Amino acid sequence: MASVACTAAAAQAQGVVARPGNALRSAAPLRVARAGRSAVVVAAGPKLDLHSNVFPKELVKFAETEEYIYRGGRDKYSKLPEAFKGIKQVGVIGWGSQAPAQAQNLRDSFAEAGMDTKVVIGLRPDSPSCEEARAVGFTEADGTLGEVFDVISKSDMVVLLISDAAQARLYPRILAAMKPGSTLGLSHGFLLGVMQNDGADFRKDINVVLVAPKGMGPSVRRLYEQGKEVNGAGINASFAVHQDATGTAADIAVGWAIGVGAPFAFCTTLESEYKSDIYGERAVLLGAVHGIVESLFRRYVRQGMSDIYGERCVILGGVHGVVESLFRRYTRQGMSDEEAFKQSVESITGPITRIISRDGMLGVYNQFSDADKKIFEQAYSASFAPAMDICYEIYEDVACGNEIKSVVNAVERFGRWPMGKIDQTHMWQVGQKVRAERKEDQIPINPFTAGVYIATMMATVQTLQEKGHPYSEICNESIIEAVDSLNPYMHARGVAFMVDNCSYTARLGSRKWAPRFDYILDQQAYVAVDAGKQADAETIQAFKSHPVHGALAECSRMRPSVDISVGVDGDNTGVGAGAARTEFRSVAATATA
Amino acid sequence: MASVACTAAAAQAQGVVARPGNALRSAAPLRVARAGRSAVVVAAGPKLDLHSNVFPKELVKFAETEEYIYRGGRDKYSKLPEAFKGIKQVGVIGWGSQAPAQAQNLRDSFAEAGMDTKVVIGLRPDSPSCEEARAVGFTEADGTLGEVFDVISKSDMVVLLISDAAQARLYPRILAAMKPGSTLGLSHGFLLGVMQNDGADFRKDINVVLVAPKGMGPSVRRLYEQGKEVNGAGINASFAVHQDATGTAADIAVGWAIGVGAPFAFCTTLESEYKSDIYGERAVLLGAVHGIVESLFRRYVRQGMSDIYGERCVILGGVHGVVESLFRRYTRQGMSDEEAFKQSVESITGPITRIISRDGMLGVYNQFSDADKKIFEQAYSASFAPAMDICYEIYEDVACGNEIKSVVNAVERFGRWPMGKIDQTHMWQVGQKVRAERKEDQIPINPFTAGVYIATMMATVQTLQEKGHPYSEICNESIIEAVDSLNPYMHARGVAFMVDNCSYTARLGSRKWAPRFDYILDQQAYVAVDAGKQADAETIQAFKSHPVHGALAECSRMRPSVDISVGVDGDNTGVGAGAARTEFRSVAATATA
Repeated sequence: MASVACTAAAAQAQGVVARPGNALRSAAPLRVARAGRSAVVVAAGPKLDLHSNVFPKELVKFAETEEYIYRGGRDKYSKLPEAFKGIKQVGVIGWGSQAPAQAQNLRDSFAEAGMDTKVVIGLRPDSPSCEEARAVGFTEADGTLGEVFDVISKSDMVVLLISDAAQARLYPRILAAMKPGSTLGLSHGFLLGVMQNDGADFRKDINVVLVAPKGMGPSVRRLYEQGKEVNGAGINASFAVHQDATGTAADIAVGWAIGVGAPFAFCTTLESEYKSDIYGERAVLLGAVHGIVESLFRRYVRQGMSDIYGERCVILGGVHGVVESLFRRYTRQGMSDEEAFKQSVESITGPITRIISRDGMLGVYNQFSDADKKIFEQAYSASFAPAMDICYEIYEDVACGNEIKSVVNAVERFGRWPMGKIDQTHMWQVGQKVRAERKEDQIPINPFTAGVYIATMMATVQTLQEKGHPYSEICNESIIEAVDSLNPYMHARGVAFMVDNCSYTARLGSRKWAPRFDYILDQQAYVAVDAGKQADAETIQAFKSHPVHGALAECSRMRPSVDISVGVDGDNTGVGAGAARTEFRSVAATATA
Repeated sequence: MASVACTAAAAQAQGVVARPGNALRSAAPLRVARAGRSAVVVAAGPKLDLHSNVFPKELVKFAETEEYIYRGGRDKYSKLPEAFKGIKQVGVIGWGSQAPAQAQNLRDSFAEAGMDTKVVIGLRPDSPSCEEARAVGFTEADGTLGEVFDVISKSDMVVLLISDAAQARLYPRILAAMKPGSTLGLSHGFLLGVMQNDGADFRKDINVVLVAPKGMGPSVRRLYEQGKEVNGAGINASFAVHQDATGTAADIAVGWAIGVGAPFAFCTTLESEYKSDIYGERAVLLGAVHGIVESLFRRYVRQGMSDIYGERCVILGGVHGVVESLFRRYTRQGMSDEEAFKQSVESITGPITRIISRDGMLGVYNQFSDADKKIFEQAYSASFAPAMDICYEIYEDVACGNEIKSVVNAVERFGRWPMGKIDQTHMWQVGQKVRAERKEDQIPINPFTAGVYIATMMATVQTLQEKGHPYSEICNESIIEAVDSLNPYMHARGVAFMVDNCSYTARLGSRKWAPRFDYILDQQAYVAVDAGKQADAETIQAFKSHPVHGALAECSRMRPSVDISVGVDGDNTGVGAGAARTEFRSVAATATA
């Protein structure tokens, strides 16, 4: 199945009922090179045109490509009755990260639009989450809280927000319970991957749509509330129409995105979404950043900033004594644990992240001195190819179904070997101490660290681009989610804490791929630097001239106008950032299944 | 498909033609719990009875189970004409690790038996290996060297010894070229895994058999030559009959095993062989041992032998001054790089390996002082569960087809990102220095290192046992191949060198799983030890009373009576140990494809 393209023919091949007014249209000529499930799509013009008859779409230019987007906002709520025509009940199943936010936002939006569409929560009757749902006004008494399959069978739209593993286990029963002509709403394409592995298809008589908010549930709720006063607040979302049985699936999907508060909604497919999402969290969003800092911390403790840094000091430094001491400190004796932590972890999650968020990756490069630019370039050049190697391996393992199969198998082993935490090792103990004594404005912007990190970020970008993903998705799954959501959490609480509190799918992925990035950087990148390998002009030129910088700038213009707040050590608010992948209140989420 | 069982019904389900005299018989009642491809077989009595009408089988007791085996030796060569009845030409395809050895051994054995069956090598005409084949007497002139597909189409038996990746790419053409009623001989079940992923089946009109010598090609040749004088020299093999079109497949398979010099041949299936083999090299044989020593080296450099070791010294030590200095050395200041290398790598590949080879795993435990036994027990207890966690993940990734799919995909990426070496990092540079100055009798037997390593070895064993493999296979893929083949090579040349010179399948696997063992030991086992967690009596009791010790003793009685010799740094003899997985002379092997 094509990765991100949905021509009418491809749609039909996927079992989509093509009919007049169908949402899936090809807006531009397509060249689709098929290779099993890993098709690469090369397109001129927007590859995806998910057409709604209710909401107006806009054409936006991201670098050299164009995409259709939908603009949200409270002024669009008046169109929700038309978008949700015939939907008398939306059943939100589960009470994890996304469900409390999406259910409350939809309820508020429906009320604002004067609709009588009911939002009903579906949970196991003995689920501890029932109490939380009741606390925000979903009750058995008024028929807005009920048993999972009972709610499913009575809903015209089912928003399925139970964990990935629970979806994998329960989907046959869930699909069987749905009303003919109803709509299945997903916030993650994971289930499609599971069903592809199983050789299973969705029922042909239902709509299957996706809305994936680009932030964790608590942010989806918080920014929606702020949106009542601050225009443009809310979390952006991607959306997809996988199957359009009623001819109105795109209206429902866009309406859902706007109803939960998305200022902008970007077109994607279930397959493109799950591939980029599962891939992204294994690459720079979680897995890679963990592996990078482990390898850098070790390196800095052992040998400081590498001989090259020392040479640079000797060659370029002014005051001889200072240079000599820097040289000794950084090359021969290594750094203290605390200093190494600052030069690796703190540098990435603090200033490097903030600069990328504000000025993009080039912003980090541009603020360096000439000497530091050289260090950055050398580290970048040595790290880019090894990072690409692992990024491609991850992507192809996700695309061929391996990664999803591994996750499903792993979850089945939890009874015997529960997933352990990773945050008790020496390095993360050092981190806790460093954070406690942190002076934010004294965190260094280490050019070697920046080179390694940004090379890996660019490898994450480049792989998605070569695999045919739209720029709105590339930017989000490689950069925006890192610098605006996950890294700020890691900065507040530690990388390991972040990893330990994500969804099983993300945690398992991070656990699997972090050490791969660690080892390959150690075995190839750092070895090359220590052997004196200089920066590669072509690699650096490719970095500087990459179209993603322009695309990211365009995405930034669509950023929510309110920052996402994060907790600190010991605070349990918003634990486990990371969009729909999050298992915030994970006990409840698991219990729901 | 059942993991290791071949009942008549299961055989038929696999597309095996069951007929009177068929080699596949169920010798005992079976209970097969099916779960996709990962069936677990629980059996009483021998699970596999591959019956030959030519050679007599023997029943052997391995711990609580029985297996049928065949005994080889030069006195059996007189039966080769009957075993190879109707086979006028054996085509050996490829010239990697196994092919030169197997082709020459078969040629010699056929001559010894007075047979006119020809052994013909199949290579690409422009392959650089042709010259090597000619040098040992296979020539175009006498019709014993030809083009691959020409040789295949003219052979009554095709022994396919090209690389895993080449097999995956070429099998449709190879199968199509074979004569009806001919025999396909494999030395690794990898191809079956590839075909299962592809949903492909073997042609029904050919035999498919396996002989997997339990040593690399050069050893297979060297010990065969020694077997002309030393009775019992030769490399043991496992064998399997996957498909029996002629009713004589078992005769051919056993004849092949004996013809290449196996003193003993053990029954298995293609599926059981590839699962245990691909799993084993990812676990303790290569992947785990690499990950273990990386994690231990780092630990010893940073903090020495852990606080517990220090406490032990303080509590139990006699001379106060010595104790104090040991304490400081081992706990506070960490070890020198060289010392850490000796206490981790050298300890495992040297004395621990030698003791296991001679006296089993309990032999290592028993030679420790009471104080060191305590350290061993604590390290073992902390490491066993994390190691099991990863071992199960590996096994299930292999069993469900993921690992083979990943290998096939990875090889296709080599054009863009060739596999890098891992032996240039600091630790392996230290290793080279340590080996150069080695005094063999001064290498320490570190009890902490031994505990971690043997726990992982036991986890490798336990997983195979729970997955239903026969003990002959368990002992080989977890212990014997480690201590009698791979570890001695690692001792001579370094762990990293060993990994860098294995087959792609093994290298990719080691690269993938070594860092997983490293991280999980660091994150769970060492953290537990440092937090003061004491040995678990139940875990230690399970280790001491495990039936594998008895099974290993039985296997040891069947060891070749001549040791396998290994090279040293700088020597290229026998590079890349490791049975059929080896790509010794890997350029030639790849070129063949």
